[in-house]
Amino acid sequence: MPLHTVRVFVTLKPSVFDPQGRTIVESLHSLGYGNVADVRQGKYFEVQVEAANAEDADALVRDVSSTLLANPVIEGFRLERAEPAGRR
Amino acid sequence: MPLHTVRVFVTLKPSVFDPQGRTIVESLHSLGYGNVADVRQGKYFEVQVEAANAEDADALVRDVSSTLLANPVIEGFRLERAEPAGRR
Repeated sequence: MPLHTVRVFVTLKPSVFDPQGRTIVESLHSLGYGNVADVRQGKYFEVQVEAANAEDADALVRDVSSTLLANPVIEGFRLERAEPAGRR
Repeated sequence: MPLHTVRVFVTLKPSVFDPQGRTIVESLHSLGYGNVADVRQGKYFEVQVEAANAEDADALVRDVSSTLLANPVIEGFRLERAEPAGRR
């Protein structure tokens, strides 16, 4: 079966406090980047799966994301299909 | 000045070994997701900056990314402009 690459973005839900992002903002301010208003940190995954077609690949990665990559209590995720795997 | 949101994706360079991604692949295989061929983990940031226009916002975030968000020895990054900040 062909390889498909799917990108997964995992972000904290808007209501969840993001201490890492907060720390980055404060560091940037002390480095002189006063124009940075906010930073939210998330996770990013490039997942390569074997699947008959792009729809199957999406469904598999969606399943994987909610099982292992994101914590659905505090995080959300979204998927994005990448160009065919060879081009990376 | 208006707020602009820029997304930053930080990924390990292709030649750098990614132990977190490797661990995720092995966990997924043991959970029965044998079709997952590879996972690369990266970081994802949503940065809100005050800037006169989108080009200035990009330039500022590019500067911030190479200074603080990415380690240029082992990581690369790319930027993506988000829709106007209000819509998040």
